[in-house]
Amino acid sequence: MADQRPVSPEAPIPPTALALRWEEPPEGPVLVLLDQTRLPAEEVDLVCTDVPALVEAIRSLAVRGAPLLGLAGAYGIALAAARGFDVDEAAESLAHARPTAVNLGYGVRRAVAAYHAAIRDDADDGQAAAAALAEARALHREDAEASDRMAAHGQALLDELLPAGGHRILTHCNTGALVSGGEGTALAVVKAVHRAGQLRRLWVDETRPLLQGARLTAYEAARAGMAYTLLADNAAGSLFAAGEVDAVLIGADRIAADGSVANKVGSYPLAVLARYHHVPFVVVAPTTTVDPATPDGASIEVEQRPGHEVTDITIPYAPTAGHEAGTGVPVAPLGTQAHNPAFDVTPPELVTAIVTEDGVISPVTADGIAELWARSRSGNGMMSI
Amino acid sequence: MADQRPVSPEAPIPPTALALRWEEPPEGPVLVLLDQTRLPAEEVDLVCTDVPALVEAIRSLAVRGAPLLGLAGAYGIALAAARGFDVDEAAESLAHARPTAVNLGYGVRRAVAAYHAAIRDDADDGQAAAAALAEARALHREDAEASDRMAAHGQALLDELLPAGGHRILTHCNTGALVSGGEGTALAVVKAVHRAGQLRRLWVDETRPLLQGARLTAYEAARAGMAYTLLADNAAGSLFAAGEVDAVLIGADRIAADGSVANKVGSYPLAVLARYHHVPFVVVAPTTTVDPATPDGASIEVEQRPGHEVTDITIPYAPTAGHEAGTGVPVAPLGTQAHNPAFDVTPPELVTAIVTEDGVISPVTADGIAELWARSRSGNGMMSI
Repeated sequence: MADQRPVSPEAPIPPTALALRWEEPPEGPVLVLLDQTRLPAEEVDLVCTDVPALVEAIRSLAVRGAPLLGLAGAYGIALAAARGFDVDEAAESLAHARPTAVNLGYGVRRAVAAYHAAIRDDADDGQAAAAALAEARALHREDAEASDRMAAHGQALLDELLPAGGHRILTHCNTGALVSGGEGTALAVVKAVHRAGQLRRLWVDETRPLLQGARLTAYEAARAGMAYTLLADNAAGSLFAAGEVDAVLIGADRIAADGSVANKVGSYPLAVLARYHHVPFVVVAPTTTVDPATPDGASIEVEQRPGHEVTDITIPYAPTAGHEAGTGVPVAPLGTQAHNPAFDVTPPELVTAIVTEDGVISPVTADGIAELWARSRSGNGMMSI
Repeated sequence: MADQRPVSPEAPIPPTALALRWEEPPEGPVLVLLDQTRLPAEEVDLVCTDVPALVEAIRSLAVRGAPLLGLAGAYGIALAAARGFDVDEAAESLAHARPTAVNLGYGVRRAVAAYHAAIRDDADDGQAAAAALAEARALHREDAEASDRMAAHGQALLDELLPAGGHRILTHCNTGALVSGGEGTALAVVKAVHRAGQLRRLWVDETRPLLQGARLTAYEAARAGMAYTLLADNAAGSLFAAGEVDAVLIGADRIAADGSVANKVGSYPLAVLARYHHVPFVVVAPTTTVDPATPDGASIEVEQRPGHEVTDITIPYAPTAGHEAGTGVPVAPLGTQAHNPAFDVTPPELVTAIVTEDGVISPVTADGIAELWARSRSGNGMMSI
C-alpha cells in the first residue's frame, strides 16, 4: 500500500470508501482500489497510477458496481490531470471501459467539465487538476449522502408495503459499500432495516457467473451481523412459492426514460417471479442512474462478456487455493460457446417502485421518472451534464 | 475396468447403457457406472461390487438422473442377490439413498418382487438371483424403448406446437443417455428433432450448483453434433424476452397425482418465465415417474443437499486441474449457510404437456394423469408395484 500524506487543505477530506480511495504519496497521487475479484478471502489493494491501469481494473471487475463506477471515472480524470496525461483522451478511454452502467460516463463528464471550467478561468495545470479532484470528491460526498437518503426512503417504503415487519428480503448481485462512496443502494436499505431490528432474513442470490452475491454480498452481510442465507440463483423460485420472500431489493446500472431497469443478469427472472407471486420488486438507485437519453429498455446496450466466465470455473481466492486462485478450469467440454450477457432489462410494469435519494417513484412511468429527475437536477443546482 | 465374459444364455444381452452396465468378471458380478461427477473431462468407470458402494455412488451423484436411478436400484438388488447379501436390507438401503426420484424405489421393488416370486416358486439362491437380474434387464429394455417412444411423441408434439420448424429449445439439468437405459427423456426428444434437421439451437442452462447442464448436457450435445450454447441459469430470462426460446423441454423426478412436477431446482422459475412469455413448457418423463401415492406438489419430498455445494466451488476435473480436481474451495465467507434444495416443484397449470412413452397428457390434470397411468399399467401387464 502506498504511503499517505495530508491532502491539500481547501478540499475537505471525503468519507472513507471501502472500495476506492484517493491517496497522495510522495511519488504522485494514486487511486487505490479494493480488488473485488479477490474478496471475500483476500482484502488486497490495487494501486492505480494511471488511467490504463484503472480501465483494466474496471474491465476485470476489480472495481465494479453502480454507482461506484461513477466515482472511479471522476477520480480517474483527476488522476490523469494530476499526473499530466491528456484529460480528454483519458475521458474517452474511461467512458468506454464498460458500456452499460450510466454512472461511469456521468462521473467522467463531471470531472472533465470541472477541469475545463478551471482552464477557461485561467487556472494552471495544478489548479485545473485540483478542480477535477474537488469535483470527484464532491461526487463522492453526494454519493455517500445519496446512500443514506436512499436507505431512509427505502426503509420507509418497506414499512409501508410490509407493515407486519420482520422482513425476508431477497437480493441479487452486490449493492452495498462495495458499489458506492457510502453504504450503497439496495443493501444500504437492507442495512437500515437490519439496524432497526426488522430484518428476519436476507436471501442472497449467489449471482452466477461472477458470484458477486456469494463473494461480496455475503461478505458485507456477515460483517454487518445479518441473518443471511446463500442460494444458487435457481433456488429463488421455490422460495417465492413457499412464501418465504417478502420483497426483492435490487440496484440498477441504468434506468431508461420509460423506467426500464438494466441490472445484473438474473434480475429480470426475479421480477417475473415476484410479479407471479405478488411480491414487491423494488429497485434502489440514485437519480444519476436515470439516463433520459436512453428512451426504453431495448435501447440499453447490454454488455456481452467473454464466454469463459461461464465455460470455465474460476478457482476462488482462498487459503486452500494456492497459486491457482483466480485461474479458470474448464467445466464444459472444450469448444463450448457460451452466451454471457452481464445484464438484463426489466420493464417498468414489473417494478413496484424505484427508490432514489430524492424520493420514491411508484408506479414506474415515464412521467414519474422525468418529473423526479427534473426536480432532482434543479434542486441540486447541478450543471446539466 | 473389469474383464467381461458372456452372460448366461437365457437372458438376452440388454442394450448398452452409456451410464451403467452389468458385468460378470470371474471374481463375481459388478455394476459398472460411468462416474458422472468427472464428466466431461474424464470418462472413468466406478465399479460397484456391493450395495453400500452403489448407495454411495447414488448419494454422491456419480450415478444420477431419472429414470436411470430405477435401473441402478434394480441392478443393485440383482447385485446383492448374486453376491449373497440380504436382499431386503439392500432394498431398504437403496430405496432411501435419495428421497425425491420415484424411479429408484420403483426399480428396487420390481427386482425384489421378482426375487421373492422366484423363492416362492422353490428357486435356489442362484436362480432367485438370476430372476432379479432378468427383471433388472427387463426394466432396462423397457426404459430404452420408452426413450424411443417419448422421443417420437415429443417430436410430434413440437411439430404441432411449432409448425414453423427450426426449433430453439431451452433445457435444464441433464436428460439424455446419462439418465437412462436408452436415449433419455427430454434430451431424447431434442436428439430426434436434431436428427430431423429441425434443431436450430439448444440453449443449455448450466444448472447450478452441480452444473449437470454445463458438464453433462453440453457433453451429450457436443457428441451429437448439435448447435448448442451454454448459459448461466440467470441468463435464460432475457432469452425469453428476446423471443429466442421456442420451447422449454425438461425431465422429471416425480410427478404427483395432480400433475405437479418435481424436477431439478430452477425448473419452476423457467415454468413461470415460459408462461409469462407464452412459450410451451414441456415435461418429458416415462409413466414410471408418476406416483399416484403422492397426491400433490406439497407432498413431494424435496431433497436438501449439503450447503457446501453452494458455498464452495468444486474444481472441475480437467487436464489443468491437477490433483485438486473434485475438491471444494470456499467462495463465500467461512461460516456462510446455504439453502440447497436439489429440486423444485412446478404446478400442473404451468405445464403445457407431459410427454410419456404411452402418449401426451395435455392439459395436465389429475384425471388425465390417472387415465394414462392406468392405461399404461394395464397395457403392459405389469405387476401392480
